[in-house]
Order: sequence, then structure tokens, then C-alpha cells
Amino acid sequence: MAVLALTVSYDGGPFCGFARQPGLCTVQGSLEDALALLYRRPVETACAGRTDSGVHALGQVVSFELTEAELGMRSDESLLRSLNALVHEAVGVRQAEQKPDGFSARFDARVREYRYFISTESAPPLVMHDFCWHLPGSLDIGAMNEGARYLVGEHDFKSFCQTVSAIGKPTCRNVMGVEVAEASIAGDSFICITVTGNAFLHSMVRTIVGTLAAVGKGRRSPAWVGEVLAACDRSAAGEKAPAQGLIFWSVAY
Amino acid sequence: MAVLALTVSYDGGPFCGFARQPGLCTVQGSLEDALALLYRRPVETACAGRTDSGVHALGQVVSFELTEAELGMRSDESLLRSLNALVHEAVGVRQAEQKPDGFSARFDARVREYRYFISTESAPPLVMHDFCWHLPGSLDIGAMNEGARYLVGEHDFKSFCQTVSAIGKPTCRNVMGVEVAEASIAGDSFICITVTGNAFLHSMVRTIVGTLAAVGKGRRSPAWVGEVLAACDRSAAGEKAPAQGLIFWSVAY
Repeated sequence: MAVLALTVSYDGGPFCGFARQPGLCTVQGSLEDALALLYRRPVETACAGRTDSGVHALGQVVSFELTEAELGMRSDESLLRSLNALVHEAVGVRQAEQKPDGFSARFDARVREYRYFISTESAPPLVMHDFCWHLPGSLDIGAMNEGARYLVGEHDFKSFCQTVSAIGKPTCRNVMGVEVAEASIAGDSFICITVTGNAFLHSMVRTIVGTLAAVGKGRRSPAWVGEVLAACDRSAAGEKAPAQGLIFWSVAY
Repeated sequence: MAVLALTVSYDGGPFCGFARQPGLCTVQGSLEDALALLYRRPVETACAGRTDSGVHALGQVVSFELTEAELGMRSDESLLRSLNALVHEAVGVRQAEQKPDGFSARFDARVREYRYFISTESAPPLVMHDFCWHLPGSLDIGAMNEGARYLVGEHDFKSFCQTVSAIGKPTCRNVMGVEVAEASIAGDSFICITVTGNAFLHSMVRTIVGTLAAVGKGRRSPAWVGEVLAACDRSAAGEKAPAQGLIFWSVAY
């Protein structure tokens, strides 16, 4: 068997999340349907991060096994062309790369990077309209960065995990960086929160963003972020930020 | 009478162009309907550039007259909030500024800037998906810039004017700059063609882009752009580039 890894982007708007669900429009469903048409058999995929409904991706990685015969059927170029013609129009397959036997887009990922965009202007932005959280009014970036520092390192992130199904499962993760900075995109200004880590719990990035936004608005102090983390209780954290501001940016293996 | 100038952005996708047309969804129609609701009377607007169906704007300028009493009715802040609540969701009113008596967004504009974005990657871009021309395959930026130089200056741009209604009307314009450069936006790469001038004929920027694209693809030489200009005949130029790649970027007064 051989393994192929696809680098995939998508606008999360039209999808009920990444993970295949019967009868629903999902990214994985669209990709696996296209692969099944190409290879004339069911194809199972693994991904680097199962994004929620409405969350976007620039550099999602999706891997699947195929036989040497199937690998030889078409060039990477021809595979990309065929896949892009078959998948949902909100999905773009950017790259196909052969990987060593046994490679998994999920289990071999070392660093995952998410970026969250907030527009603080009174009118919504143009190009990023559907890729940001429109939150008019000023945010204190210095205070947000001060609060963000409490999150960096190996911690129990139970306070930032949405799902009850996480009960009993390990909730420790290694967050390598949380940075809040101004960003200019296509003529509009944003606050961009970049979060990198080895792995993330369900809704963890959006709960981090919601918590930091409360600090940026001055409703909470930076030190409160440390208290939220220490509480190990979801009700201690801020509200989950909207899905449409989040982009699963890249993965390192 | 007083004059207000609004800075307006819009996604051109949902609109049949800027100019009001009976029974059609247009940017001017949406703005004038909102202003009529606010001031309880019909309001006539002038704009810096009447963009075509599907063309976007980041910094369109729209002006209208109002009485001193109407001007005093609400603060700029409150006007922006009300307008943004009333206009089509694809329109953003970013700024309101009082101007000297007699000011016209159309007649007082000195420099108009348009930017056109081309994606040459095999898969379409993420955030800019609906704001670019997806034209897979490489483009020779050097050759495009060489061709672009023929267009700079005061010329008769008849070859680049789409509309037959232009017959008999002056077709001389002063193009101040045409620059072709790489641009990186939200993780994707583009070729950006920036065109500045005192004023533009109907479809002129899109015909310039289509003509330069033929040069970039190697189908025509840079010198051909000079021949097209000299011909003063629309059939000499390249095809008009698609509307969705064009953004009316800014206006200087």
C-alpha cells in the first residue's frame, strides 16, 4: 500500500463541519465521494484536524491509502485537476504528496496552527467578510497578549473544552504559542490571534479567542486567563467565539 | 445646503452594478433607499465611479446634498450605524464626511485607483475566491509590465472602451500608472494589476487587464499593447477580464 497526503482549503460556510455525517454536506463527505468516483471503490480518509461547522481551512491535510497500481494510475497534476473538478466548489485541493507507508495526517501531525480574525471597525470588512468575527469597538492588544501568556505550555485545558464527551478523556495539551497582532488584509485591518499547539480539544481555539476578547474589551483582567486555566471547569472561561472567524492555517509533520 | 461624502465598500456579486435601475438590485438603489428612509424624502447621490455588474469597491465615494437641519439631525457615528443597519448586507458604509458646498463625488475626483487580482494557482484561493480571476498557469509579470508602459500618459483609449454609446463622446483619458506585481493575501498568492488615472471609460480597466493577460500568457508581445492603443478600435484589444477580479480601490480629491 502507498499513502497520499492532500493539502486542502475550504470555506467552512456551506458545510456541517469536516467529519463525514450521513445525509449532511461535509468536507470529508465531499472529498471521499470524489475519491470513490476516481478510484471506483470506497476511500477512507484521515485528517489533521476535524474542524467544526462553519470553520475554514487554508492548509488542512487529508491522507488516505491506495495500492501501488492506483498510485500509478495518474500523475499528481492529473489527480489535482480531477479532484478539483469533482469536489464541492467551496473546497480546493492544492497539493498531493506521496508519504511513507503508515503515514497518517492525524497521528503524525506535530504542530497545528490556527488563525482567528477579528474586525473591530464599525462597518464589516470587504474581502474577509465571511472569514472574521465582526466585533465593533476597540480591543486592547497588549492586555490580550498578557493574558495569552498564561496559556502557553503543557497544561490541562479542560476549561477550554466544549464537549461533555471529553469527560474521562485526557485534556492536557501543549500550546506552543498564542500571539495577538494587528494584520492588514486587502485594505482592511484586523486583529489576528495565532494559536499553535501539538493538538487541540473540541472548540478550544474558539474558547481561547472568546476569553481573550473579554480581556481585550476590558471586562476581565489578563490574570483572569490564568484563573480560568487553573479552574479546570468550562463554565469559568469566556464565550466561544463565532466559527466563521477561524481558519485552520497549517500543519507541520 | 450642506454636502456629505460617504466612503462605501461593497461585494459586487449580488448587484446589477452601481447605478440605480428600476426593479433591479443595485448599490445606488440600496443606498438611496436607505437615505430616503432616514431623511423621509428622496435623496439623489453622485458617485466617483459607476462600477459594472459584479465589480467590487473598497473605497467608492458617494455624495449627496442635505439641509443644515438634516445635517444637524444626527452625528456621523449615528448616521453610519443607521445606514449600515438599513443598506444591503453586501454594502458597508465606512465613513461620512462633511464637504464644502458644491462638492461632487463624481466631478471633484482627481485620481481613481482600481486593483485587479488574478490567481494563477491550480486550485482557487480561499478568502479571495470571489474577488479574483482564477486563471491557472503562469503569467510573465515582466512582459506585462513592459506592455503596461505603453498605456501610461494622456491617450485616446477608444480601443479599450466597450460601449457603443461612447461614439461621439471624448475617449481621451490620463492614465497615471499601470503596475503589475505579486501580492500575498491571506495565505494565497496573486498577481495584482494596479491602475490609476483621472477617469476611465466603460470597461476600460477590465479590457486593459484582458490585454495584459494575453501578453502575460505569451500569446502577444509587449509591443502589441502599443499597437492596440494606436488602433483606436475596440476589436484590436484583448478580451475583457471577468468583473469579479476588479476592486474600485480608492479615490483622491
